[in-house]
Order: sequence, then C-alpha cells, then structure tokens
Amino acid sequence: MNFLEERILKDGVVKEGNVLKVDSFLNHQMDVELFDKMGEEYAKRFAGKKITKILTIEASGIGIAAIVALHFHVPVVFAKKTQSINLDGEMYTAEVESFTHKNVNTIIVSKKFLGPDDHVLIIDDFLANGCALQGLIQIVKQAGAEVAGIGIAIEKGFQSGGRIIRNLGYQLESLAIVEEMDAATKTVRFREQ
Amino acid sequence: MNFLEERILKDGVVKEGNVLKVDSFLNHQMDVELFDKMGEEYAKRFAGKKITKILTIEASGIGIAAIVALHFHVPVVFAKKTQSINLDGEMYTAEVESFTHKNVNTIIVSKKFLGPDDHVLIIDDFLANGCALQGLIQIVKQAGAEVAGIGIAIEKGFQSGGRIIRNLGYQLESLAIVEEMDAATKTVRFREQ
Repeated sequence: MNFLEERILKDGVVKEGNVLKVDSFLNHQMDVELFDKMGEEYAKRFAGKKITKILTIEASGIGIAAIVALHFHVPVVFAKKTQSINLDGEMYTAEVESFTHKNVNTIIVSKKFLGPDDHVLIIDDFLANGCALQGLIQIVKQAGAEVAGIGIAIEKGFQSGGRIIRNLGYQLESLAIVEEMDAATKTVRFREQ
Repeated sequence: MNFLEERILKDGVVKEGNVLKVDSFLNHQMDVELFDKMGEEYAKRFAGKKITKILTIEASGIGIAAIVALHFHVPVVFAKKTQSINLDGEMYTAEVESFTHKNVNTIIVSKKFLGPDDHVLIIDDFLANGCALQGLIQIVKQAGAEVAGIGIAIEKGFQSGGRIIRNLGYQLESLAIVEEMDAATKTVRFREQ
C-alpha cells in the first residue's frame, strides 16, 4: 500500500452514493507535503518522457498540479470553467459534464499557452467517468500538442473513465485506484498496482 | 525593483480600464518557480509570526498558496465559491463581490478546517478593492482564529483595498504595488517599498 492509499484509509470518509470525501487533505484543505510526495512519484512514473507543460482544471486540480510542476520544472496551465472578461483572445474550448455539480461547463484554455510543440502532462485530483479528463485531452488535441501522460490522485476504478482512457493508449497513472467502497462498513478496497 | 515587479514589466500587459493581464505567469499559466520565490519572500516578511494555516480562495489563489505553504510547512484551505454537494456539514460563509465577473459569490469554508487555535496567513494573487480579502478575513473571524498576516502578489495601489486593510492594522505584504498604469503608453509604475 502506498502513501496515498494509506492516507485515504486514515482520513478519507466513505459516504452513500460512492462518494469518497478527501476534503481534509486533498480538495478543500490541502496537505502540501503530501502533494510534494505525489510530485516525486509522478516524476518516477513519467521518467524519460518529454514534458513541456502541465495541464489541469480548476479548482481542485490546481494545488496538486502546481506542486507536481516543481518536480518537472515546467509551467502549469489550468483550464477555466467560465468565460472571464479578463480572458480575451482566442480560446480552446471543450464541454465538460460535472457529476458533482450536476451541470455542464465550458472549459477554456487560451491558445497562447498550448501549441503544437507542447508535450503535456495532464494532472487532476479525481478520475471517475472521465468527463473532465476527456475535455482536457480534447483541448490538448485542439492545440496540436501531445498528451505525454496523465497523472491522477484517486481513480474510481469501478467507473469507466480509467478503462476508456487506457484503452485509447494513454499512459494513465493513478496513485490510488478504488476498486470498491462501502458506506455501511466504511471500507475501501484498492486495486493492486 | 524586485523579481515580481521585473516580471510584470516583462510579461504583464496593460489594458484599458485598469486591467493588468498577468495570465502568462500568474493566473492562467503559472510559473511555479516564480511562486517558489514568492514563498521564499513571504517566509522572510512573516518570519517570527506564528502561522498554522494558509487560507486562499479559488481559483487563481490556489497555485500560489500551495507553493507558498511548502515554505511554511502548514496546510492550505481554499474558500470555495459555490455550494458543492460534496461539502456537507457546517460552513463559514461570506458574500464576495467579483469585479472581474460582475457578480456576487458566496464563499464557503468548512468549519472542520479552521478553528480558534489557528493563526492564518491569507494568500491571494490580486488585491484591488479588497472584497475577496474582506470575505476571507470575515471567515477567519467567524472561526475565532487570528489573521497572522496577508500576502498578496499584486496590489492595485490606486484602489482602496490595501489602504483599508492596512488601516485596520493587518500586516499586509504585497510583493508588487501598482501605483499607476497607462494602457496608451503601456507603462506601469510601482510604489517604492
């Protein structure tokens, strides 16, 4: 069991409806030393890959991506969820359905910050059905850039997102893959990696 | 002139309506090595202060706050702008007007992550009229915690936010204070610090 799986067992809370609350260390309060360890681990898993940029999506991906980027010495670009008046110029856009918020967002990335020469590591906190991730991949493709890899903190292995992405041939590295969880018994079982 | 002021002159873009675009390094694409220098600088400016937690607000404060937190060895809590179904339990809340988006958001922080024993360093990317900052201060007060200090990347010194906060007695450290800027001549003048 790795450091993230141990932390999930210690501080994660299993709720009804396959909700895993990790807001005490991952996506509301953030344990930055944990993120630093995650950066170290991704650096190992993507060693030898050419990476020029990290792409993530607001809001909860940003903290992880920023600290992970210190290990790769590249800038982070985060996709924004709404049009801002301060974001002029041309945009890459994709539609993303949110399971959490039960709505559809347009995500946008300025064309200034992703181009055909980029080799992109996509970082996000959660992977479930994969909608956010598919939107980010779509944006990388619009830029003519390469998806060099995908680093996820927690994957819900019982949902289809991870399988689809792996079937498409991407190197997807999830630090913890939840195989099943049970709100009644408060248990979480991880996939062996 | 410090490293952030130099970077603003090099890569910032002055637009009509007192808009300073720093999206190439601060709030869309993020230069994490720059954030690391900012963390170093805040560590100097707040040396000797007891700090147990960093508080910021989504989305563009998160990357800076996460990397700054590595220099203080404390967790980050970020205030969220909308109610999420994954955020149950009791919340601290405040109303914040957004100049950029021309709307009013409720910002929320779970009561689990801020309490009377906390000494809070507030971090954000921009300070203009101070609405976001006042909302964060209000949340710290609701928690019965202490505002140990406030670290801002770029303050618009010609708007009232900074003056009000300093008049209230807070230690507010802005790494760059824009005294005036001119879209016609593309110039920025900083306050001497």
